Amino acid sequence: MKLTGNLLIGASEVPASAGTMKALNPATNQLIEPDFALGGIAEVDMAANLADLAFDHYSHTSLAERSAFLERIADNLDAVSRELAARTALETGLPEAQLLGEAAKAATQFRQFAGVVRKGRFLQLAVDPAQPDRQPRPRMDHRLQKIAIGPVAVFGASNFPISYSVAGGDTASALAAGATVIVKAHNAHPGSSEIQARAILQAVQDCGLPQGVFSVLRGGGNLIGEALVDHPLIKAVTFTGSEQGGMALYRRAQLRPDPIPVFTEMTSVNPTFILPHALAAHGAQIGDGFAERMLVNVGQACLKPAILIAVDGNGFDPLRTAMARRVAEAPARPMLTPGIHEAYLSGLEQLQSIGAKPVATGTAALGDLDGRSALLEVDGQRFLAQTALAHEVFGPAALLVRVKDEMQMIAVARSFRGQLSATLHLEETDMELARRLLPVLERRTGRIVVNAFAHPQEVTFATTHGGPFPATSDSRFTSVGMTSIERFLRPVTYQGFPDALLPEALRELNPLGLPRSVNGD
Amino acid sequence: MKLTGNLLIGASEVPASAGTMKALNPATNQLIEPDFALGGIAEVDMAANLADLAFDHYSHTSLAERSAFLERIADNLDAVSRELAARTALETGLPEAQLLGEAAKAATQFRQFAGVVRKGRFLQLAVDPAQPDRQPRPRMDHRLQKIAIGPVAVFGASNFPISYSVAGGDTASALAAGATVIVKAHNAHPGSSEIQARAILQAVQDCGLPQGVFSVLRGGGNLIGEALVDHPLIKAVTFTGSEQGGMALYRRAQLRPDPIPVFTEMTSVNPTFILPHALAAHGAQIGDGFAERMLVNVGQACLKPAILIAVDGNGFDPLRTAMARRVAEAPARPMLTPGIHEAYLSGLEQLQSIGAKPVATGTAALGDLDGRSALLEVDGQRFLAQTALAHEVFGPAALLVRVKDEMQMIAVARSFRGQLSATLHLEETDMELARRLLPVLERRTGRIVVNAFAHPQEVTFATTHGGPFPATSDSRFTSVGMTSIERFLRPVTYQGFPDALLPEALRELNPLGLPRSVNGD
Repeated sequence: MKLTGNLLIGASEVPASAGTMKALNPATNQLIEPDFALGGIAEVDMAANLADLAFDHYSHTSLAERSAFLERIADNLDAVSRELAARTALETGLPEAQLLGEAAKAATQFRQFAGVVRKGRFLQLAVDPAQPDRQPRPRMDHRLQKIAIGPVAVFGASNFPISYSVAGGDTASALAAGATVIVKAHNAHPGSSEIQARAILQAVQDCGLPQGVFSVLRGGGNLIGEALVDHPLIKAVTFTGSEQGGMALYRRAQLRPDPIPVFTEMTSVNPTFILPHALAAHGAQIGDGFAERMLVNVGQACLKPAILIAVDGNGFDPLRTAMARRVAEAPARPMLTPGIHEAYLSGLEQLQSIGAKPVATGTAALGDLDGRSALLEVDGQRFLAQTALAHEVFGPAALLVRVKDEMQMIAVARSFRGQLSATLHLEETDMELARRLLPVLERRTGRIVVNAFAHPQEVTFATTHGGPFPATSDSRFTSVGMTSIERFLRPVTYQGFPDALLPEALRELNPLGLPRSVNGD
Repeated sequence: MKLTGNLLIGASEVPASAGTMKALNPATNQLIEPDFALGGIAEVDMAANLADLAFDHYSHTSLAERSAFLERIADNLDAVSRELAARTALETGLPEAQLLGEAAKAATQFRQFAGVVRKGRFLQLAVDPAQPDRQPRPRMDHRLQKIAIGPVAVFGASNFPISYSVAGGDTASALAAGATVIVKAHNAHPGSSEIQARAILQAVQDCGLPQGVFSVLRGGGNLIGEALVDHPLIKAVTFTGSEQGGMALYRRAQLRPDPIPVFTEMTSVNPTFILPHALAAHGAQIGDGFAERMLVNVGQACLKPAILIAVDGNGFDPLRTAMARRVAEAPARPMLTPGIHEAYLSGLEQLQSIGAKPVATGTAALGDLDGRSALLEVDGQRFLAQTALAHEVFGPAALLVRVKDEMQMIAVARSFRGQLSATLHLEETDMELARRLLPVLERRTGRIVVNAFAHPQEVTFATTHGGPFPATSDSRFTSVGMTSIERFLRPVTYQGFPDALLPEALRELNPLGLPRSVNGD
């Protein structure tokens, strides 16, 4: 595919109105061809108007039509997966084989959401029939379905440049909900974004849908993002990235005359607790597994375990030694962007300035943007006294917190802000302590994992990729998994309707054969 | 029951720390005994700390225990219903018989939520079993339940002083979710609030629950409300009232270091569209029914139909005449508070200053706070040009919009901001126009009603009492009905858990026998 670098607004190729940019290859720190267009407020307005115009049609597509569209996107992504992985590797420094896996995952997500759409459970159809003889007054017929909230703006992630970017889970779940979508492409991978966008836009055309169903914009600085969040026709926003970036968008959207829902997935240190019997039995193995996991994606992962808490006792030294060995052996690898690389270095410095002691560092950086892995250590008392030690450093670093006893382990658990996940390593004989930790962790995390390191992000029905602030801006939703569609749905009740005027899904004879609750059952 | 006027913070009777107030009888414009305590930031902090302390225990109560508690509240409310209705009538000027109905409805809501809790569907249990043989890598076991978000602050309504106040739907749904609750009592009905609060607090004691499950505060000005919204231990807020009040709380909560969900139910003019064949066939009957409905509760109802749109043609004059007659005959009745009465008068003036013409007014006011009913009229062109004509005037007034044709009716429909409800009056032969209006209304309302006036608020599974801004601050939720519980729930995923460590509801053998989805089915 020849990359044009244009903005892709519905069916229009829109050239630069605010300058151009090139992608950076973080492995070489060199710019890559071609030029990519940057747009401004006019392009946001054009995309938003198209998205709004297309909304009535697209949000009323039949479930069959909508799921066929999602499957077509998946097929189109599969058709370009090698090209996509190759270009994305150039722009991110991530291994091409891993990115091929990501492309496959992105396609799978669209197929999974096609299944969700076809089954129709997400409509949450509810029928409370009329009770004409009820005393003291009759009850009218009530029927409820969920409908899409309106056009959605998606701010994709940089660290999973396919499966959580233009063709990622946010786009898939919003389109599945019946929302039209405008993606603000991440400037760290513009070529990858164009390839993904064209796969989706081709599907819009293949399926004969209105062009405004999907657009991709790109801009310099914050201009385009702010204009998207401000635009009166945009009705919801999703974002994956830093706490600072996410909260700027969140707060801006809440200052609109009409605030809109903004789901941001931001920051998490994913604390890992090694319970005493597990530590004694498998200290070295746990240390090794933890360190391997923390280095995945050069530590640039929302689920990277960044803090490990263990009681200083039997098994502690083998744990520490195993972690140190693997970290020391880890080769430095290119990080995604100069900004991330710089933040990583200053984050490490900051941790050390407030009491974290270096235990091991990986091999020295060769490239300008290489991130060198690091293991730091602190005792429980210092950790509890210095809340900034619990802040995320995005990259291949972790902090080992040596606590003096179980009480202090629980105190450390209580000290955490909201998290995407927490992990417990435990033996049968650790169960009592685990039961005391559990309610503490439930209040602070969206997911609790037992005895695992490599828990890839499963996109299933029981997935929660969310959690209390600052892990996300709204703990009631997940950004990954089949229920992430709920971020973009709102209920509408049809009361006393003649059957012929009801949406098909709610008609008396249930012509679509969809699951519906009747009086709540 | 002797009213002490104290703040009721858990099991403590807390006297005034910031002065006292008395209730006003709006029928006589005279103050009523006794004094009621006003509190400040210290009392908010005390209540929030108790609510947080009680949270772990209360949110982990068994479904049986929690539903028994809700039923006990219902019984306790029933036991004081006559006393409650009598005191509430004194404080609101509303008829005692109506308030007896409201007390019964409040008790019923607690019983309905007890049923929701017992059935356990609200937990949205989902199991995605391990797939140890999956390629290329095994899938871990994932199990999801919903848990309560944390302590909730409830700001009750003034206009339904029982069923949407201290013992109203917000409190019932939050307690059902497993959240602890702090109510900021409305200063318009402090005695009623105390009677309701004692019924709930007695149930807390009867059921042996920790005292912090429930508290009621009262304060002067905005101090207590702001302190509640700011308090770091409060994790969600609900509010029913004006757009100005709701948005002040909403925006304040979004400026917290950790923003929290605030569900506000604020303003709606509930537009009613009379389609041409219905108008021709039943103009007079529709006008009469509309006017009757708009006068319910002295027009102080969130579902009051405030704007009626009809095409100037066959049936229009009979419609207008019937409305005018009933409005002219309506006796002026006391409004809830001096503030509401004053806002009603200035709202009517404002409408007339921007082009609404008076058609009829009700009988003259006798009491100082009596609201005199009013019917105003405007043509479609003027209505479209003056967006302020679509703003709510809280009280017994309505605006008849005379449109010139179907096109203009649709244009008027498009001009509305978000609404709680819209109504269509139609005949079989109006179906084509109804189909054109429907998508316009779906995007702007949470509920669409056909051929009805008196649609009391049904508290069912298919109820939506919500809608796009400014009807509410988040169109994805409802504040009334069984799914209103979702405002206070968040998902937690348990991954790779040994069976003995799982919450009982998620254990392999499903010992509680609750409904669970498995792989989404």
